[in-house]
Amino acid sequence: MSASSVAETAERARSSALKLAHLNTETKNRALQAMATAIESNSAAILEANGQDLEFAEQQGIAKALIARLALNENKIRGMAQGIRSVAKLADPVGEKLSAMEMDEGLLLYQITCPIGVIGAIFESRPDAVPQISSLCLKSGNAVILKGGTEAQNSNRVLVSIMNEAIGKIDGVPANAIQMIETRAEVAEMLHEDKNINLIVPRGSNDFVKYIQGNTKIPVLGHSEGICHCYIDEQAELQKAVKVVLDSKLQYPAACNTMETLLIHQGIAEKVLPVLLEKFSEEQVELVGCEQVCRITPDITLADDSDWDTEYSDLKLSIKVVSDLDAAVAFINAHGSGHTDSILTENRERAETFLREVDSASVLWNVSTRFADGFRYGLGAEIGISTNKTHARGPVGLQGLVIYKYQLIGDGQTVAEYSGDQARQFTHRPLSPDNNSSNH
Amino acid sequence: MSASSVAETAERARSSALKLAHLNTETKNRALQAMATAIESNSAAILEANGQDLEFAEQQGIAKALIARLALNENKIRGMAQGIRSVAKLADPVGEKLSAMEMDEGLLLYQITCPIGVIGAIFESRPDAVPQISSLCLKSGNAVILKGGTEAQNSNRVLVSIMNEAIGKIDGVPANAIQMIETRAEVAEMLHEDKNINLIVPRGSNDFVKYIQGNTKIPVLGHSEGICHCYIDEQAELQKAVKVVLDSKLQYPAACNTMETLLIHQGIAEKVLPVLLEKFSEEQVELVGCEQVCRITPDITLADDSDWDTEYSDLKLSIKVVSDLDAAVAFINAHGSGHTDSILTENRERAETFLREVDSASVLWNVSTRFADGFRYGLGAEIGISTNKTHARGPVGLQGLVIYKYQLIGDGQTVAEYSGDQARQFTHRPLSPDNNSSNH
Repeated sequence: MSASSVAETAERARSSALKLAHLNTETKNRALQAMATAIESNSAAILEANGQDLEFAEQQGIAKALIARLALNENKIRGMAQGIRSVAKLADPVGEKLSAMEMDEGLLLYQITCPIGVIGAIFESRPDAVPQISSLCLKSGNAVILKGGTEAQNSNRVLVSIMNEAIGKIDGVPANAIQMIETRAEVAEMLHEDKNINLIVPRGSNDFVKYIQGNTKIPVLGHSEGICHCYIDEQAELQKAVKVVLDSKLQYPAACNTMETLLIHQGIAEKVLPVLLEKFSEEQVELVGCEQVCRITPDITLADDSDWDTEYSDLKLSIKVVSDLDAAVAFINAHGSGHTDSILTENRERAETFLREVDSASVLWNVSTRFADGFRYGLGAEIGISTNKTHARGPVGLQGLVIYKYQLIGDGQTVAEYSGDQARQFTHRPLSPDNNSSNH
Repeated sequence: MSASSVAETAERARSSALKLAHLNTETKNRALQAMATAIESNSAAILEANGQDLEFAEQQGIAKALIARLALNENKIRGMAQGIRSVAKLADPVGEKLSAMEMDEGLLLYQITCPIGVIGAIFESRPDAVPQISSLCLKSGNAVILKGGTEAQNSNRVLVSIMNEAIGKIDGVPANAIQMIETRAEVAEMLHEDKNINLIVPRGSNDFVKYIQGNTKIPVLGHSEGICHCYIDEQAELQKAVKVVLDSKLQYPAACNTMETLLIHQGIAEKVLPVLLEKFSEEQVELVGCEQVCRITPDITLADDSDWDTEYSDLKLSIKVVSDLDAAVAFINAHGSGHTDSILTENRERAETFLREVDSASVLWNVSTRFADGFRYGLGAEIGISTNKTHARGPVGLQGLVIYKYQLIGDGQTVAEYSGDQARQFTHRPLSPDNNSSNH
């Protein structure tokens, strides 16, 4: 595709989005069901395309772990379809009355959720992301432009084509709801389409997400780093703390919500460090620590300054002894990435201080950092995890794909009547936003 | 100030913000009351500084209208204090439980509003903006870095210093909650402080806001253009429509929510155009129109293509005849700025189509576009009007200055227990988020 055709793709998406915005829930769900069925009944074509991708990946000598994520089978394809059906079951996030107010007698103001518009989604090699992101965008009434990993290009193409054929048969669903671009040059072009693309959702390496954030005027939803902490307070229960800390590191070391740095109150460090050293050594976790840590447990290597700002995404952990809760909070606010941080303590007051003062998207008390995830949080499905401080924060589901508009309904009122010496007064009487918008 | 000191200003703001985030409502309100009182009792000092600004402005030959906005008097100063007191009366937007869920027995998830962090506010010459923006940021627990118009520099400096002295006496309020920068070079520096500044709120000319949007990674809340439309449908009631359309243009022509283009259904154009021509001529409004308009009312000048994308902010209006409602909606979605658009019709079905399909922050039925404003919408006070499609849209009050965090509370749970063949199941039982957070 030439650069001009990315602009055309974005324009087509915008036209589609204007129609998707007012599809009713039933139509959207029928389209989702059709997508799920089509993916299941075209599994042979999907597996064939995936086979081409795998063959190419093996020729290129791509890492085994990547190939495992790329590879599809009947089971994974059924999983894709089930994922789409579970999105169909979620409540429609569009058309919800967020507030209702009588500004004056006969002058009514409603705040009603609506789609954002056009989403640009850029993601890694897993083809599973294609139906997942597409179904979340469709359910929330957004058009999407997908850019998957080059390694999965054949699989992604077939998936997009199957989904489009399926939804094309559903009355009322506009064309171009789901489009795909394929090259890095096209991604660069897409980042300039701020007139027609309203949100970029990137998933991938830190450097990649930072590149996106630094090269577009379009709002970006996501996170570059996941530097998550656990803090074992002086009043932690030892066994519980050790169990949670192990899970936070080991349950899936490559995940963004995995603990990278462990803080320990000085009053409990001598008791807990030897236990942790033993457990983590059993699991082949490499440990680095501050001077105090190394004094207590000399088998742990001395950390250097960069360790406190590093996301290992691996079987490695930095450990630091802190003087008290305040020091722990200050350290996390200085070195964390605002993603997920957990305190281990039996002291409610200290826990509440931590939950209040740590400036992260997810703040946890006596639970593993690994819980910070859209499925576990009950969002049904997740478009991504955000460390933004605006729009949506933490695990983001359908709610992060909508915004609102104000609808004001009157009968000929002018602002002049509400101005000057003889001004009519507004009543500003809140109404209950209980019933759903008449639009849906 | 040197460039490095803008970075220091931003760092100080971030430290302050971490403390402001958990001030209780009473402390914030006491600080606001102290600000209001201090401004009133220091009116002489404020007027003296304002006198210096006015003298300088007159020497520079600055336009009369600008000088009028710059000039303060006892009455305007009382207005500033009243504005701050009205913010004190608003509900605290921080600490509100947006949702509550039992993920499993003994595993509770809360979504709780919290401040965004550090706000960079850049605004035009009116010194009134200083207490207004400062009070909104303080009430919402955000630190603010202000950059006002150079013309108002002395007035702004004195206002900031008076407010800081006042809140410095209130126990618990951190230093550096309100800071000010003064030069354009410092604004350019501030736009690079994405590590410590979380949101930029610019107010000013289109070009200025576009410059900000194009030169920072920090999210920007605002609008560059306000190209607002009225559409007179075939089934409009003539007298009502004319009244609303006149108000939409004339009530305050320089405002961003003023109508710039009027669309008229072809079936009613011959009836309504002569009436409008007469009324608008009386008010010295310059009219330009499409070919059909000029055929019906030859006294109206032919518009050129650029007129349909121009915000006049003045006594000028472009008028176009459209074939039907769909054409009106498509025209607005193509040429509008997503700000505010109004339909005039007695036909409910058509009105609902318009409200649903026009992709603007405020969509109105039978009322003047001038109603799209934070005070009229009952927000209490307004930080700005946003045409963003993420975070906050339309008139933005305190709610646009907060985000949320997730708090997850358990008793030693690990994700491993919820994984694999023997996985515990989540209950995901919604709880009523009725009571406020224990933090406040």
